[in-house]
Amino acid sequence: MMPSLTAAEVAALVGGEIFHGPAERPISGANSLEQATPTDAAFFGNARYLPALRRTRAGVVLVPVDFDTAGMAADDPLRAATLIQVENPTLAFSKLVEKFAPPAPSHAPGVAPSAVVGRDVKLGAGVSIQPQAVIEAGAEIGDRTVIGAGCFVGQGVVIGEDCQLHPRVVLREGTILGRRVIIQPGAVIGGDGFGFQLHAGRHIKIPQLGGVRIDDDVEIGANTTIDRARFGYTHIGEGTKIDNLVMLAHNVSTGPHCLIVAQAGVSGSTRLGKYVTLAGQAGIVGHIEIGDRAVIAAKSGASKDVPPDSVLFGMIGEPIQQARANLVNVRRLPKLLEKMKKLEAELAELKTLAAETGGGRRLFGNPDADAASVEA
Amino acid sequence: MMPSLTAAEVAALVGGEIFHGPAERPISGANSLEQATPTDAAFFGNARYLPALRRTRAGVVLVPVDFDTAGMAADDPLRAATLIQVENPTLAFSKLVEKFAPPAPSHAPGVAPSAVVGRDVKLGAGVSIQPQAVIEAGAEIGDRTVIGAGCFVGQGVVIGEDCQLHPRVVLREGTILGRRVIIQPGAVIGGDGFGFQLHAGRHIKIPQLGGVRIDDDVEIGANTTIDRARFGYTHIGEGTKIDNLVMLAHNVSTGPHCLIVAQAGVSGSTRLGKYVTLAGQAGIVGHIEIGDRAVIAAKSGASKDVPPDSVLFGMIGEPIQQARANLVNVRRLPKLLEKMKKLEAELAELKTLAAETGGGRRLFGNPDADAASVEA
Amino acid sequence: MMPSLTAAEVAALVGGEIFHGPAERPISGANSLEQATPTDAAFFGNARYLPALRRTRAGVVLVPVDFDTAGMAADDPLRAATLIQVENPTLAFSKLVEKFAPPAPSHAPGVAPSAVVGRDVKLGAGVSIQPQAVIEAGAEIGDRTVIGAGCFVGQGVVIGEDCQLHPRVVLREGTILGRRVIIQPGAVIGGDGFGFQLHAGRHIKIPQLGGVRIDDDVEIGANTTIDRARFGYTHIGEGTKIDNLVMLAHNVSTGPHCLIVAQAGVSGSTRLGKYVTLAGQAGIVGHIEIGDRAVIAAKSGASKDVPPDSVLFGMIGEPIQQARANLVNVRRLPKLLEKMKKLEAELAELKTLAAETGGGRRLFGNPDADAASVEA
Repeated sequence: MMPSLTAAEVAALVGGEIFHGPAERPISGANSLEQATPTDAAFFGNARYLPALRRTRAGVVLVPVDFDTAGMAADDPLRAATLIQVENPTLAFSKLVEKFAPPAPSHAPGVAPSAVVGRDVKLGAGVSIQPQAVIEAGAEIGDRTVIGAGCFVGQGVVIGEDCQLHPRVVLREGTILGRRVIIQPGAVIGGDGFGFQLHAGRHIKIPQLGGVRIDDDVEIGANTTIDRARFGYTHIGEGTKIDNLVMLAHNVSTGPHCLIVAQAGVSGSTRLGKYVTLAGQAGIVGHIEIGDRAVIAAKSGASKDVPPDSVLFGMIGEPIQQARANLVNVRRLPKLLEKMKKLEAELAELKTLAAETGGGRRLFGNPDADAASVEA
Repeated sequence: MMPSLTAAEVAALVGGEIFHGPAERPISGANSLEQATPTDAAFFGNARYLPALRRTRAGVVLVPVDFDTAGMAADDPLRAATLIQVENPTLAFSKLVEKFAPPAPSHAPGVAPSAVVGRDVKLGAGVSIQPQAVIEAGAEIGDRTVIGAGCFVGQGVVIGEDCQLHPRVVLREGTILGRRVIIQPGAVIGGDGFGFQLHAGRHIKIPQLGGVRIDDDVEIGANTTIDRARFGYTHIGEGTKIDNLVMLAHNVSTGPHCLIVAQAGVSGSTRLGKYVTLAGQAGIVGHIEIGDRAVIAAKSGASKDVPPDSVLFGMIGEPIQQARANLVNVRRLPKLLEKMKKLEAELAELKTLAAETGGGRRLFGNPDADAASVEA
Repeated sequence: MMPSLTAAEVAALVGGEIFHGPAERPISGANSLEQATPTDAAFFGNARYLPALRRTRAGVVLVPVDFDTAGMAADDPLRAATLIQVENPTLAFSKLVEKFAPPAPSHAPGVAPSAVVGRDVKLGAGVSIQPQAVIEAGAEIGDRTVIGAGCFVGQGVVIGEDCQLHPRVVLREGTILGRRVIIQPGAVIGGDGFGFQLHAGRHIKIPQLGGVRIDDDVEIGANTTIDRARFGYTHIGEGTKIDNLVMLAHNVSTGPHCLIVAQAGVSGSTRLGKYVTLAGQAGIVGHIEIGDRAVIAAKSGASKDVPPDSVLFGMIGEPIQQARANLVNVRRLPKLLEKMKKLEAELAELKTLAAETGGGRRLFGNPDADAASVEA
């Protein structure tokens, strides 16, 4: 059962004040302005959602302290809601979301009967091994870590304390996880790097004998893949957060606190500094360095070393001002082409004129002829 | 055993007529012009496949009613085939494909002994739970739904009737599926949204407490990921079809009957209208609206609201006519640069000429001097 | 336990010669210049790693035969290392990597008790079926092949000899694998192709009744998806290597020995010749042919047939010289626009001049004035 609060209790919880609508209205959920029903609370924190606000069916809406109902039409559905003024609607709403959230799934400590645990595995205190998981020989799992249903933990893998592996994660042999690492379902850590040598017309596999080291407080998204190193370790620095379907190739290393957004890819041996952001679908070539705090924009590339604090945009990764200027300039081309035509016409006319006048004598290489003959 | 038909039986099945070659030829498969062997039927429905047609080894080829063999060389392998004229070769071929297809794998109702089913799970009539699947506490599964081998169905997940989950699909807690939903292997529904707040130099996780709601007749491709909402639901509208390796972020919502092609990605809270098409590798920023029937071309982006019926192309998502014009104009640049050089030269010449002639007196600010002094 | 060698033994193993530092130093690992510790060997094979060389803490470094320590500062950490000159440091290092690599996980032949094997399955000699794998009815698995933990092998799938399926791979029914095929974790082979027909406002599923045929010596990356054919086979040619998160759609066919890098995608029925390279995040439209040895650059597209030996670059896939010229030309635009302004100003001035002088009489409709007056 979800908890239920009155609008007045909601106001008290978020430290706000009701200034419109009934205080006794029962609220049992938190949702967006667009999805909310009359038993939900919603919030209005950004002017771009004004149309959604006016249409909302939410029972309670958290609004900024300077909000009033003067601008609303008489028939705006919002008029039916209870409105609560708060300092910061976005933050206040987070409290409600947590209040109304369903309880997270519980993972009782212990090893599920259907899990398979190899020899010489060390399990810390309070570890939970969920159904159908496979833990291979010699793995070590830190206190309170949860290994989700159907996960695979390869031979000798080391996992720190308080980690959470969601279902169907694969950690191949040679993977080392720090503490409080969260891995979403389907991620694959430690697949072979993509390395081949062309020999007599065939691509011969270069052994990929290293591993993957993931530091404390890293989060890795669903179905993301991080390849093992050819030697040594592919390395993800402390606190770096990685979204879904990201590809990090062999021997990549990231500094701490990077953000790598969905579907971005980094080729082999490239090194990211700290606080680097790769936006969605960004792609980075191999063997380069991305400086601290650099940002590679969505869908953009980087093909050579990137200085710290740069913001790159575009397929070939130009500084964003340059890339934007290029775009603007390209759009000016139709006008430029037109002007060019006009200039050519005018110039031709002037030349004709010059030819017709005395100037023409010089222009056409006959300085001694008189003007009249040019006109003939 | 595959069924075997004579060419005459094939003609009868598709409602066509043999106009070339033997009628008794035995046919036991359907394949493309290029892959077909003498016991296969193939079809020719598009002029671009003419070279493939002439080279085909197929035993039977379905051709349009206006097709004749006049244009074929005497030694074209096609001459050896039996040709059947039909109204619509593509549609007719579909009948053959279904006739010759191997039987689909059968999924007997019941729970495989190796599957793990939690407490308080409700299974409808004729439900099939395949080997190694994990169904957590409180889940509800509708009549005749098949849960493939190794799938994970989280706590309290609700699945409608006649759904098919192929192997290794993950549905985390908070996921709700309508009826007749098909999910290809490896898809992950309900992973945490990618939300963090920078605080004292660290990215602090914003709880992702919502779920994912998927309406009737949706299909989801292999290894695609759809994240749970921060609150409320990420929502996929009725009849929308999603290809492989697509990423839909938290709180995204799609209208009904959209097509989202492989490797496309949509950032958080963006809303798609109905009949929207995102082509392969398209990428959409967060918090925007894509109008009904809009098309975002392959590899293209959209970074602000998209009006209905738009067709956008290019990394920054310009109307396709504009984007094409840009490309054409950029290719004109070499000629433009040349013309510019020519104009500059001509203009310089004219100026020299003007300076040398009487005009020069004015041009160089000495209107009273005589021409001779300028030339000195 | 890792093996331990002295620096002298390392030199002997790689056929090199110590020319700086102690010969007895114990070495028990191989790593990059940057990650190496004093018990590791590293190598220096490329001038771009000179800064890393000078900072390295490695106990042993393999260097080229022409390398000397003359250029090093007195306090470079490298001075503490033992340096070994070898012909080819990169190749020599590979020997060390293999020497020091942890033993690969062993997969004893036999069927794990937790695996589920259907009726009429044929297992070759020495086959290993790892825990939680599911082998459906009628599948055939060749000698010495390893089926990793949690893999799914569908009804009637045929797998050749000496293949390795890493954990959680899905092969749906209709898949045929040759010999020595390696598949990284999470890959999905044989998911339904993405084919729908719009009918009365709904996308109706086109049955995908074919399979996937993968020839000898192919490697497939983690979480990559290869869809089954609508009819016949999606086909991967011998020796082709495919990286992670790649999408190959229904009825795609690749020649032998192609390289398809991470996150690339190929739409339905497109055919790749032999030795084709698709770089990372490349995207190819459907129903085209990519000629032998063609290269589609990273993030680039191809939207029509590609001749053999082409190198395409850019979102629309232009020949790379053209694409580069476009980029250079676009960057010239600011200068071009400036020049244009200057030309316009100069031309305006000339026109004014012409108007003020005798020329003007003609320019402005006074053709009868004599030339002499222009010079006045």
